[in-house]
Amino acid sequence: MSSHATQTVGSPKLSQAAVDKLKSICGEKNVITSKIGMYAYGYDGTLLFGVPSAIVFPETTQEVVDIVNFAREQGISLVPRGAGTNEAGGTIPVNGSITIGFSRMKKVIEVDVDNYVALVEPGVVNWDIQEILAKYGYYYPPDPASWKSSTLGGNLGECSGGPKCFKYGVTRDFIYGLEVVLPTGKVIWVGGNDFSSEPMYDMTRIIIGSEGTLGFITKIAIRILPIPAAKKTMLAIYNTPEDGSQSVADIVSAGIIPTTLEMMDNLIINTTEDFVHAGNPRDAGALLILEVDGHPGDLDEQVKTISEIVKKANAREFKVASSAAEVDQIWLARRVAFGSVARVRPNYGVNDITVPRSQFPAVIAGIEKVKKDFGVTIGVVAHAGDGNLHPLILFDQRNQDEVEVVHKAEKELCKLALGLEGTISGEHGIGLVKKPLLFQEFSAVTMDVFKKIKRAFDPKNTFNPTKLIDL
Amino acid sequence: MSSHATQTVGSPKLSQAAVDKLKSICGEKNVITSKIGMYAYGYDGTLLFGVPSAIVFPETTQEVVDIVNFAREQGISLVPRGAGTNEAGGTIPVNGSITIGFSRMKKVIEVDVDNYVALVEPGVVNWDIQEILAKYGYYYPPDPASWKSSTLGGNLGECSGGPKCFKYGVTRDFIYGLEVVLPTGKVIWVGGNDFSSEPMYDMTRIIIGSEGTLGFITKIAIRILPIPAAKKTMLAIYNTPEDGSQSVADIVSAGIIPTTLEMMDNLIINTTEDFVHAGNPRDAGALLILEVDGHPGDLDEQVKTISEIVKKANAREFKVASSAAEVDQIWLARRVAFGSVARVRPNYGVNDITVPRSQFPAVIAGIEKVKKDFGVTIGVVAHAGDGNLHPLILFDQRNQDEVEVVHKAEKELCKLALGLEGTISGEHGIGLVKKPLLFQEFSAVTMDVFKKIKRAFDPKNTFNPTKLIDL
Repeated sequence: MSSHATQTVGSPKLSQAAVDKLKSICGEKNVITSKIGMYAYGYDGTLLFGVPSAIVFPETTQEVVDIVNFAREQGISLVPRGAGTNEAGGTIPVNGSITIGFSRMKKVIEVDVDNYVALVEPGVVNWDIQEILAKYGYYYPPDPASWKSSTLGGNLGECSGGPKCFKYGVTRDFIYGLEVVLPTGKVIWVGGNDFSSEPMYDMTRIIIGSEGTLGFITKIAIRILPIPAAKKTMLAIYNTPEDGSQSVADIVSAGIIPTTLEMMDNLIINTTEDFVHAGNPRDAGALLILEVDGHPGDLDEQVKTISEIVKKANAREFKVASSAAEVDQIWLARRVAFGSVARVRPNYGVNDITVPRSQFPAVIAGIEKVKKDFGVTIGVVAHAGDGNLHPLILFDQRNQDEVEVVHKAEKELCKLALGLEGTISGEHGIGLVKKPLLFQEFSAVTMDVFKKIKRAFDPKNTFNPTKLIDL
Repeated sequence: MSSHATQTVGSPKLSQAAVDKLKSICGEKNVITSKIGMYAYGYDGTLLFGVPSAIVFPETTQEVVDIVNFAREQGISLVPRGAGTNEAGGTIPVNGSITIGFSRMKKVIEVDVDNYVALVEPGVVNWDIQEILAKYGYYYPPDPASWKSSTLGGNLGECSGGPKCFKYGVTRDFIYGLEVVLPTGKVIWVGGNDFSSEPMYDMTRIIIGSEGTLGFITKIAIRILPIPAAKKTMLAIYNTPEDGSQSVADIVSAGIIPTTLEMMDNLIINTTEDFVHAGNPRDAGALLILEVDGHPGDLDEQVKTISEIVKKANAREFKVASSAAEVDQIWLARRVAFGSVARVRPNYGVNDITVPRSQFPAVIAGIEKVKKDFGVTIGVVAHAGDGNLHPLILFDQRNQDEVEVVHKAEKELCKLALGLEGTISGEHGIGLVKKPLLFQEFSAVTMDVFKKIKRAFDPKNTFNPTKLIDL
């Protein structure tokens, strides 16, 4: 959500010659300068809004290079954009900048199952590559909630996580190498094609999570894995969120690494019931969705251990899905969780604070306190296995007083996470929204190193400026 | 091995005041300036040699800071050193520099099994932390061959791999966060305490693999895992290296991810037989050691599939260890492989070229050609699962003509790896030895970005200068 003033559409203009040049690079219909285009591409997943001077859709690395060179000559800054699902304002146009939309760069260049690698372009939607890989019996583990629409380029920009990341790791753990267009217009390949280390400084991972501020990704070598032979999906229901969060800590302490450990609180259980009638009890304090995967032989044993642990933590109900339909039924509420809260209030702020797993009960208790202290409505959805929480603060942006209280509550949530040795952002990035909070997490010395890295790549600050840090 | 001139001991000298200052920081007996000390700490795992002006052994981060500040004021450069097992010359003293030995910083500060994390100092030996973790039922997967002596700080400096890395990943995949002393003398914590992404630029991974050229690591939060419930160790013996390497490709293509897929060729089979009489057939062309781990239920099925695959690839023998003694017997030859070649020639050059797994048969054939073309003796030990090979070129450094041929053969091996879309260094780093070969792997544009990163951290080039890149 936004604390930034809305810009007015129509002010920044490119000369006709500049527009013609962009059209000569990308093709007539792949350059948008209309007012309606500005509106359509002025937003992302936040409430922020910005006005670009044009939106261009290159199809090849060379076209990206030509745009970068032209923009540099003209002194125009560039903002990269995938599907625009960004939760931190990272893809919001900067006043007068050109937005590069990567949605036409969506070729799957190669699927190489022998080396567990696929070479793709950044505009490929996460879900689409999963469907292609499934035909080979493979998958790409990072699975952000937005995966049906978000692009791999965007996932890399934010170093996205997702439900499966507890067991398998986040985006940075599944990238072998990248083709990157630098602010100089030069193209480099960083990283390798295989699992071993590349020597020298880890350029792959400095680009991942940099939100387009250091370079634009034009090709990605993703690491893929064989689809596990079997999986078991479980549902545990608790009277209190404390009991649910204790189960999370207990399961992991027992040495079990589930694929997924998702949690929803009472408010989200009720908003999802209103929406899809998933059949979960409205008086429950928390609900856990658990999945384990691997060879069939292991799973029965793991399910047994988990069932014992959750019962010891006072679960009032524990179910193991015995059919694909039952699996879908268990996931139904979780899948619509974010959308369902619109029934309560028109807007929500998504946070992605993260704490060490053992602090999960403490952070749940802390969120309860924030609710009371600020009088705000918060629904909690969490990737509980890795301590990554999405407390959704519900509000109405037309009520300015309420918006201000929400901002204060968000700051308090960040303070809460930092006090528990956590971070203000586990997977959504910094963009514009979290930038004012960075000083809470990083020292002045660390912020200075970030600036030096940014300057090393982009001394003129033309690649997604104003995001992450100001120079 | 070295193409660098040997320096003369005794030339660079610190003033008595400077030595006194260092002693006041670290304590009288923790500063070495004797000639014998120069010899002892002038080497690493290569044949290179360099002369420091002093060797100092700090015990705390503050002592490291004090040394860094003093050296900066005096314009003296600093070289970090763990156990000195470096295979690329990264810890060789630069003429007149001060070597900081981290072996006294070996505290295990915390083992936190609830969060799968241990906080340690950089001088902790890899093997020692494994023994401590084992008491809790946990382990740290990266296991370089040097693990009985090499330190975690050194492992991070090189981003070391090891036999288990095929399944689990390399060093960078097992580090949550780091305390780092920068060339400015400032101390920062980079990364987090848990599994989720830290926001902003990935400082943790830019430091990992940087060989002490950007900062000195003083604390490490390592990710630990529960020891798998069971493991199976197998041995497959082949008439030809081609058959052995085909098995590697076939096993992985079948969707099996063994913990370990180690390979030895005929020469190494014979040198290890001479040394330890492991009982392997001297006429075999190659030998594979395979391990799978996980829940006991899975393993039988995986062993069955592997046995079918290796038989189809003409394995003449396939054994599954049925006791701890049999496991040790299978590993015996591999454990002494490097040392055993000293029976053939007094020196060996270790390479760590790496290729995509499916190119494994091609790289094995390429090494055969290098042997013939250059008339050199090469024994191959390989982490075959991740395409990471150690062709050991055997020679006598007293024969200068032979040394020159070996250098040419090494360059040819690197060219071979790059031609197969591989890298010149999979896990040993660049240091001094591979620096002249970097231009073969990286474009001038990429090298320029490396330099900019180095300058961003260390503009005066005082942290391990001459290693990796020259400014």
